Amino acid sequence: MTTPTEQITAPNPPRRIVIGVDAGGTSTKAVLLDDTGCVLATSRTGPGNPTSAGHDLAVANIVAACTAVVHTARERHGQVPPPSFIAFTMAGVLAAGGRLPGVDEALAQAGIPAPISFHGDVLSAYFSATAADEGAVLIAGTGCTSARVSGGAIADTHDGLGWLIGDEGSGFWIGRKVVQAVCRALDRRGPDTALVDELVAMVDVDSELGMPWKDQRLLNLIAWSYGRRPVELAAAGELVARVPDDPVARGIITEAADRLLVNLNASVTTPKAGPLDGPVVLGGSVVSPGSPVGDLVMAQLVEQLGADKVLRARDGRAGAGLLALRALGARADDEVLGVITRGLDGQVA
Amino acid sequence: MTTPTEQITAPNPPRRIVIGVDAGGTSTKAVLLDDTGCVLATSRTGPGNPTSAGHDLAVANIVAACTAVVHTARERHGQVPPPSFIAFTMAGVLAAGGRLPGVDEALAQAGIPAPISFHGDVLSAYFSATAADEGAVLIAGTGCTSARVSGGAIADTHDGLGWLIGDEGSGFWIGRKVVQAVCRALDRRGPDTALVDELVAMVDVDSELGMPWKDQRLLNLIAWSYGRRPVELAAAGELVARVPDDPVARGIITEAADRLLVNLNASVTTPKAGPLDGPVVLGGSVVSPGSPVGDLVMAQLVEQLGADKVLRARDGRAGAGLLALRALGARADDEVLGVITRGLDGQVA
Repeated sequence: MTTPTEQITAPNPPRRIVIGVDAGGTSTKAVLLDDTGCVLATSRTGPGNPTSAGHDLAVANIVAACTAVVHTARERHGQVPPPSFIAFTMAGVLAAGGRLPGVDEALAQAGIPAPISFHGDVLSAYFSATAADEGAVLIAGTGCTSARVSGGAIADTHDGLGWLIGDEGSGFWIGRKVVQAVCRALDRRGPDTALVDELVAMVDVDSELGMPWKDQRLLNLIAWSYGRRPVELAAAGELVARVPDDPVARGIITEAADRLLVNLNASVTTPKAGPLDGPVVLGGSVVSPGSPVGDLVMAQLVEQLGADKVLRARDGRAGAGLLALRALGARADDEVLGVITRGLDGQVA
Repeated sequence: MTTPTEQITAPNPPRRIVIGVDAGGTSTKAVLLDDTGCVLATSRTGPGNPTSAGHDLAVANIVAACTAVVHTARERHGQVPPPSFIAFTMAGVLAAGGRLPGVDEALAQAGIPAPISFHGDVLSAYFSATAADEGAVLIAGTGCTSARVSGGAIADTHDGLGWLIGDEGSGFWIGRKVVQAVCRALDRRGPDTALVDELVAMVDVDSELGMPWKDQRLLNLIAWSYGRRPVELAAAGELVARVPDDPVARGIITEAADRLLVNLNASVTTPKAGPLDGPVVLGGSVVSPGSPVGDLVMAQLVEQLGADKVLRARDGRAGAGLLALRALGARADDEVLGVITRGLDGQVA
């Protein structure tokens, strides 16, 4: 084991350690920090989101991520005390009552009992970019939500209402708009668009629907759309970036950006906290750098708030780690966040 | 048994008879006609749509409707010959290849073998209002579709693509718009609207979602929306009629009417048939008389085509019966349709 940068060389043995866990639908990632933000170890296990993975598998994976990161830290650094705090962040945990039952017991059984806290993934995204107590954050991936952060906690959120009735401007929302626009074009209910060829190339289904008067491409698209989970329409949303100058694609991009800005603005101006005096953080694939929607949103926010107030979310583990340090009462400012971030960047694991 | 009107007194015994069956998701309704359109009997059984009821139950109910209507006709009129033709109409049968397997065999087993045909429910709606060979029809209920009729058959259809990617302007589409508008109002992402109180009164769910900063009405609405099949959001669509002057409701009504007219216009102008020289038929709850969307659509069509060219769909059994007479080569003009319709109106059963 090598420690390639100074940031991950901790005083040995560390006095207190914390763990931050970013539990996602694809994988669960943990970081173990000393109380100055030095990264002592990281780990990665399987899906940790109870909504998609199911409760038992999610608990197993997030506890496994904790035991793995403790094990690695002890291998690398010898004596490492038991964790003083573990912060978990995951999508949907707020709606589920702010906790994932069974984690306490499972951690104790695994030999690493510790005080724990659960937070929404909006908070790990926010604290991956800033240590500011006051601010706002917009996450736009397959779904989308914005939040107002006040006193380091969520004071309000907007949208995040899911694909059926909300998530306006999200990847699903854009994908559904793309499919609808292509349906209209093939159905003579709307203008032709370069999105037709893009989407037809993506659709890998041969329909057996018996409506000979309908365009076969439209029949295939119907079969494709109903042959998967609704949220998977988000895949079609990525096509707008291929033909951003097509008028129909441009209309979808512009409307998505507008909806996301309305959403974020509701969190910025919420009556549940004072006037915003802090940064705005953007995270998620839909508003990533270079994405057409992201560029529009960024340009609007920079004009509105100034370039120094608009930040991009980084590694969710950094946010989860900072939340753990905050809970411990340790120093958790932008300098410490910088130490965590550089430590994660320098990790070979 | 009484025969209260002249229309249902047939020459006895009739020379040839046909059956028309309108198979729906709630019930299956059959009518037995002689070859002049006189109604000899009607019957009603359970759900006959294979998509919602399942194949076996649908076959059982539509065959039961046929045997019941033959039985009743024989009770009332004595000697009745075996049916010379049976026409079945049902939603979704076109997409399923234009037939429902097993009906032939089941009819033969039930002792009433006959030549049969299957048609979409758009065609029974169309022929419930007119006997014209050429025309167009728009059906807008929970879903919506338009069709161009040419030579008495469907030449083209538009939309009917289902709740996820189509059915624009349908009951589901309107219901989803209502829910979204109420979400936006409660979430400070859109204007307040009288639809909030209307929808809140309909939502009979107490959410246990753990987001204390969110309006409890919004949390309840989320739980309600995701606690049923997506198409059931159509129930919320009926609320626009209660507050038609509310600006948000008015916007939804206007947009729905626009989408339905675009849809119908695509069928009117389809290149798969010549210029339209026939009536336009409207059917389904969304465009029913007195409904706000229906009134807008009707006004626009009357202005465009003239009042005599815009008809309302009536009893789907009449359309199915007319289709059976057409298949038999019997007279099937507007006068015969009038005989069928008056016969159905006069039926006590």
